[in-house]
Amino acid sequence: MRVGFVQYCPAFLQMETNRQVLAALLEGIEADLLVLPELCLTGYFFTSSEEAHAAAESIPDGPTTAWLTTLSQRTGAILVAGLPERDGAQYYNSAVVVGPRGYIGHYRKVHLFYEEKLHFQAGNLGFPVFTVTDRSGETYKLGVMICFDWYFPEAARTLALQGADVIAHPANLVRPDCPRAMPIRALENHVFTITANRYGSESNGRETLSFIGQSLICDPMGRILAQAPKVGDAVEVVEIHPAEARNRRITQHNDLFADRRPEHYQLS
Amino acid sequence: MRVGFVQYCPAFLQMETNRQVLAALLEGIEADLLVLPELCLTGYFFTSSEEAHAAAESIPDGPTTAWLTTLSQRTGAILVAGLPERDGAQYYNSAVVVGPRGYIGHYRKVHLFYEEKLHFQAGNLGFPVFTVTDRSGETYKLGVMICFDWYFPEAARTLALQGADVIAHPANLVRPDCPRAMPIRALENHVFTITANRYGSESNGRETLSFIGQSLICDPMGRILAQAPKVGDAVEVVEIHPAEARNRRITQHNDLFADRRPEHYQLS
Repeated sequence: MRVGFVQYCPAFLQMETNRQVLAALLEGIEADLLVLPELCLTGYFFTSSEEAHAAAESIPDGPTTAWLTTLSQRTGAILVAGLPERDGAQYYNSAVVVGPRGYIGHYRKVHLFYEEKLHFQAGNLGFPVFTVTDRSGETYKLGVMICFDWYFPEAARTLALQGADVIAHPANLVRPDCPRAMPIRALENHVFTITANRYGSESNGRETLSFIGQSLICDPMGRILAQAPKVGDAVEVVEIHPAEARNRRITQHNDLFADRRPEHYQLS
Repeated sequence: MRVGFVQYCPAFLQMETNRQVLAALLEGIEADLLVLPELCLTGYFFTSSEEAHAAAESIPDGPTTAWLTTLSQRTGAILVAGLPERDGAQYYNSAVVVGPRGYIGHYRKVHLFYEEKLHFQAGNLGFPVFTVTDRSGETYKLGVMICFDWYFPEAARTLALQGADVIAHPANLVRPDCPRAMPIRALENHVFTITANRYGSESNGRETLSFIGQSLICDPMGRILAQAPKVGDAVEVVEIHPAEARNRRITQHNDLFADRRPEHYQLS
């Protein structure tokens, strides 16, 4: 099946402009799975909680889930995209999974980075894995994590142990290390990973953050199948076979998950 | 304090020759901590369990612990070195920690690679962390894991959560990925890592294994402080400050361990 990322630079809080730019970037693209960045329509560096909360919306009945559904119908792809979520009086940095028939599920970021902690609650839905189908009807399991979750090996591990074949990873990366860590996340869990990052910079009036681009797709051997530049729009789509993630026998005597020894791990 | 690795190529089952080669490599070296490879005096690729078991010895009352103690006295360094261990009728792929006053502790490899499973039991001592002192009397915490343990993020994580500042990692690496994974193990746990690998190749009569060298020392930011070539003897010693491993505050709002959310991890 064909999977890819969309790297671009949103205009802060210019939702309609950003929808148009993203739609143009996806013009003519057909795929089974496309990952968009974290907070992909709003931008990232809110100047206040009021501003972040005003940009938030309900999932699935907010406008972004609806817009993504039309984009999914156009591309044929399941889409994973980040947005600020409002649930009653609670706010989360979330990612929604949408197919041609609409909402499939969503994830609330568990490990919040930097000033996100001022605006959002930490996720309370765990690390979700969704059973989905590609355009040919083949079933695979899709896990979702967001940006800073990469730093914590437990995030991808939890998704893989629940059966994820592919991890969708919307991001707004600021720190430099994720592009060299994601091949290791893929390798140690024997899964595919798709990191969709943004580029450019944003200021909250006190400080400027620069985003590092370099969106990338990794295979279960930790190889990089596609990578975007540090700066610039990029839509990269590659062919993968999710079933490759399911055989973790790396030698005649070693199966990566059967070889785990949880009785010796102290991880609480 | 000064920490380092010793990379070399043992002659299979030529214990006395290997002791002489290692002693010569360490001639004139002074350090606080030195890591030697896995199975560093015997070599790796046993042709049978009988051969592996005949090469095994007790810890701490076997000859290798005694020999390491004299080497520790000469260099001033705590040594971490791999050897096959016999404990009654059980055999382990172990690493012993020895100081100038002798035995400090040892570790039995938990994740066995390839034909090791034919010759050794999986380790039953968990992942140990030892409180030790450098030559100036400063205390730090030393964790130990062996070779293939690198593939499982739970190994280094368990050591770091128990307080390890430095992870000693004797290895006989065959697969190519560890040198790019160790900086991520160091980064995600905010610890120093010292991987001591061998080079050269060995045949068990049916198959030949080649070892990849590239021993390396990493700091808590995932930077490589020293790295050996793929082939060739190498003793590299660098200055580190173990206390740097203890402050995991990577932004004003983020502490790597306080930010962990074990209630959302499913790792059993």
